[in-house]
Parts: sequence; C-alpha cells; structure tokens
Amino acid sequence: MNGRFVTLEGGEGAGKSTQSRRLAAALRARGIDVVETREPGGSPGAEAIRGLLLSGETERWTAETEALLFAAARADHVARTIRPALERGAWVVCDRFLDSSLAYQGFAGALGWEQVMRLHEFGSRGFLPDRTLLLELPSGDAAAREFQRDGGALDRFGRKSGAYHEAVAEGFRTLARLFPDRIRPVDASGAEADVTERLLATLEDLL
Amino acid sequence: MNGRFVTLEGGEGAGKSTQSRRLAAALRARGIDVVETREPGGSPGAEAIRGLLLSGETERWTAETEALLFAAARADHVARTIRPALERGAWVVCDRFLDSSLAYQGFAGALGWEQVMRLHEFGSRGFLPDRTLLLELPSGDAAAREFQRDGGALDRFGRKSGAYHEAVAEGFRTLARLFPDRIRPVDASGAEADVTERLLATLEDLL
Repeated sequence: MNGRFVTLEGGEGAGKSTQSRRLAAALRARGIDVVETREPGGSPGAEAIRGLLLSGETERWTAETEALLFAAARADHVARTIRPALERGAWVVCDRFLDSSLAYQGFAGALGWEQVMRLHEFGSRGFLPDRTLLLELPSGDAAAREFQRDGGALDRFGRKSGAYHEAVAEGFRTLARLFPDRIRPVDASGAEADVTERLLATLEDLL
Repeated sequence: MNGRFVTLEGGEGAGKSTQSRRLAAALRARGIDVVETREPGGSPGAEAIRGLLLSGETERWTAETEALLFAAARADHVARTIRPALERGAWVVCDRFLDSSLAYQGFAGALGWEQVMRLHEFGSRGFLPDRTLLLELPSGDAAAREFQRDGGALDRFGRKSGAYHEAVAEGFRTLARLFPDRIRPVDASGAEADVTERLLATLEDLL
C-alpha cells in the first residue's frame, strides 16, 4: 500500500465533518488523490448497517449488539472502500473510525476498550490508521456548536446524556495517551482555516 | 430461569421449520407455554439485520462481516426475546441458533468455530441452549426437499455450492461430537409425525 489512511476523531460538534472536507481539499491542492469517507458507513453495506445504528430509540440495542454492528459496518468499509483506495495509492480521509467505537462503546458504554478492539481484530484484522487527528474542544463549546448545527434534532448518540459525552471525551484522551504515535490531539477551537493548518502540520511527516 | 431452550439445527431442507412448528404444538399439548422463534431474526432488531443477511449477492459480505452481523442479530434475539421468555417460565423452540453460525461461518466459511464462539461469548455472554436437536438427512434427500419447497428460489445461502453445503453438514457432525451432552443427532427421514416423535423422545429427560 502506498496511500495513507488518516482519521478524524472527537466528540459531537468538534468540527470533524467540516475539517475532513477541508483537509481533503488541502491535500488535493498538493496533488494527492484523496478519498473522503466517514463512519458508520462509507460503503453500500456499511451504509445499510448505519441506518440500523443511528435510527430508533436511544436504548434500541444492547451495548454488545451495538458494538457488533459497528464492527460489522467497519469490516465492510475497510474491505470495500478503504483498502482498495490505499492499494491504488490514494490517501483516505475518514470522519470517525475505530477510536469512536473505543471511546463510545468501550469507555462510555462500559464494554472496555480491549473488548471492542478484539472485535476489530476479528472483523478487519486489526487494521489501523497511519494517523488519527483528535479534534479537541472545551465540552461547553462542542455542545453549543452541535446544537446550533442541528437545531436540536440529534441522532441516537447526540441524544444521550451529558455524563455520557463527558465519558466519551475522557475515553478519547485516554486513547491518545495509550497510542501516542498514532493519535495526535489537535486544538479545534478558533477559525476553520486555522484548525485545518494545525491538522496539516500534524501530517507533515507523512507527506 | 425455569423454561427450557431447545434449538433445531441442520442443513437446508432437513425439515427444521416444519418440525419446529410440530414440536411446539406437541409441547403445548402437554400444557407447556411455548415461544416459537427462528434465526436469523426473532426480535424486531434481529429481523432488520436478517434483511441485510439474506438478500443481495452471494458474496455481498466478507466472511468476517457476515459473522459479526449474525452475532449482532443473535445478541438482540437473546436479549429481547429468548431470555425474557425463559425468565417467565416458557419454553423456547428456535429454528437455527448458534450452531448454524458455527457450522456455516465457522466450518464451511473457514473462520474457525472458536472465533465464531468468541463473538457469541461477547454478544450473548455465551448463552447456550439446554438441548440442540440436529436433524440429519442423507445430503441428496435434503437438496431434493429444498428444491421442491422453493421451486429453486433460494436465498443467499441456499445458492452456495454443493461443496459448501457438504462442509456445513460435516461441521454439524463435528459439533455433535464436540458437545455430545447438548447436541443430539436425530434421523430426519421418513414421515413428519415419526420425526416429531423422535425429537420428543430426545427431550424426555427435560420434560
């Protein structure tokens, strides 16, 4: 594989979707072939599973069922979209990936991150990003930004409690300590263009 | 739990659906409260996942994705349908369960049955039937019976090759040797009423 696999992670409202688009555009401006994708979803099979995951009641699935569905969607996404793109030399910029499952289901959902990692090892042979950019905002800022964007119409995860989202944020911070080479925290506050510059600087050694 | 959990297993065309109905009726005739169910499916969430599993091209999913989806559907089925029924004292008669995943994905699909069992341990805490009735037919008989029933309109699994179905049958036989207390082979040839009698006889110690 010649391409690079870069994921953007963080809680709701940290600006991941916007920054994924901006980062992909900045890489293309440097002449790089970039595939933009996001989870859950990113391939026809995974998008079908996404529909099951994001709709319905907050307690629709048990924690275990939810983790299995995320691992299934990710296995399809890796096999059908990400690996083929990397193999033809493209970069892949992905809005959420494994670390979201580790933070949401592993830490905040209390399954334990090692269990969630084991599902990833089974489904996708433990396939990991070359670099993970962790977008960090003070939690009050993120909640305000998310509310503005959706006018309060949140999906099944957005509707969970503040304590849940605080546990997610703490999970991401723990992961960044556990995997310091791969996961890099980036300050996501301030102007969008400034954040994009920080993300690019964090990828400089891969370019 | 006071109820008993009985599963029927075997390859395509062995008569599992018919015998599940007949067995449930025979148990009810003895005054037992019986819940009839089947996999994949058996609860609203699991039925939604079933739709993803049984439709589309034969190679729609990788072996790993397929196994994760089956484990997710089973986790939902156990949590939402099977455990609640057993807890109120009912018997549950289920057309296919874990052993189908072990035989199809573990043996015939080459994932290894231990890997598939590990997903079940994660998703459903390794929940096992009290008794599994393995319906056995000479493989030619089963293929003929299946073709008659569906007029050739088989689902994604029915369309797989003869070698695949032979590997499934061999997988079931291996499982019966590995778990002889739980899994009991039953001759599924001959008149339907005779088969039902054999199944009941195999449950006598649980009644």
